[in-house]
Amino acid sequence: MPKIVDHEERRSSIAAAAADVVAGAGADAVTMKSIADRAGVTTGALTHYFADKDQVMVAAMLHANAAMHERLHEALALGRSPVDALLAALPNDDAGRRDWLTWRAFGDVATRSESMRLHHRESMDAWRIAAAKAISERVGRSPDEVWLDAELVVAVVDAIGDAASIDPESWPIDRQRALLDHALGHVLSN
Amino acid sequence: MPKIVDHEERRSSIAAAAADVVAGAGADAVTMKSIADRAGVTTGALTHYFADKDQVMVAAMLHANAAMHERLHEALALGRSPVDALLAALPNDDAGRRDWLTWRAFGDVATRSESMRLHHRESMDAWRIAAAKAISERVGRSPDEVWLDAELVVAVVDAIGDAASIDPESWPIDRQRALLDHALGHVLSN
Repeated sequence: MPKIVDHEERRSSIAAAAADVVAGAGADAVTMKSIADRAGVTTGALTHYFADKDQVMVAAMLHANAAMHERLHEALALGRSPVDALLAALPNDDAGRRDWLTWRAFGDVATRSESMRLHHRESMDAWRIAAAKAISERVGRSPDEVWLDAELVVAVVDAIGDAASIDPESWPIDRQRALLDHALGHVLSN
Repeated sequence: MPKIVDHEERRSSIAAAAADVVAGAGADAVTMKSIADRAGVTTGALTHYFADKDQVMVAAMLHANAAMHERLHEALALGRSPVDALLAALPNDDAGRRDWLTWRAFGDVATRSESMRLHHRESMDAWRIAAAKAISERVGRSPDEVWLDAELVVAVVDAIGDAASIDPESWPIDRQRALLDHALGHVLSN
């Protein structure tokens, strides 16, 4: 009996392969051929799932971004503290580094493409909305009232992820933890 | 009488041209030829000043970074507030956008090159030391005691500069100002 491969499942595994390639070589160096090779499909098969490089780049970015959300929520579901959950989403293992480098590369593409920029904006706003909701529940104020604190936390997490992706040696997990503790201390004590 | 062009002056104008090219096209797309063309010199003359692309990339990055420091210090010397001075260093005009895009591109290169990473680290640390000194003077505590607040402010400025470079439309100066006011409010009130 032939194995029926689900279309979405195949798209998702290609998006993961594309994220690997982007994280390793940067967005400019990526070609449809290098993605197809990594995913173990022909270029012809790849274009069946994604029409062009832009489409597969968006899928790679959404894949990396979803993986960060997942790691954060898994940690919270296990009863970890907000700081530990953020550390789980930051580039502290191979998967996390892959996701942040993909995310970073996507930012570069977004500086030169409007459609990429809209995807980028939507993803960033989703993080801010989630942060506002989480802070709001902890301090007993409305999400609107804590919006700037949510922006602050997302900015700090973004800067840490960026710095730790560029220079992991300078950003061991203890340094990340100290800055997150400090930032959340300001946000949750006011 | 032949015009004597100062070696450092020529290097500096080539570094500025390289920053323009990097900001426009991204680090991967830059070639010695494209930099020479932009600087209005031959490739042969370019290699007299910079041996290879890595050297001219470092010079471009240091040029962009120095320009950001300069705009910040000029604003402070004019008696502007810390927030206004930071806004002057952020990508709020053509020069600022050029500098931040160059800086961002340099981060990409630094993910794949150790020597670039060391330059990147040194430049980031210089910003943190300057921030710690400035905060320390305002709150009457030692730079060591306010180190995490300095890290916090640099992280927020870095994240704003990054976001405003990628998606300027989402980050008008008022949004940048609101987040900076908020972050400095936390830092200077504690």
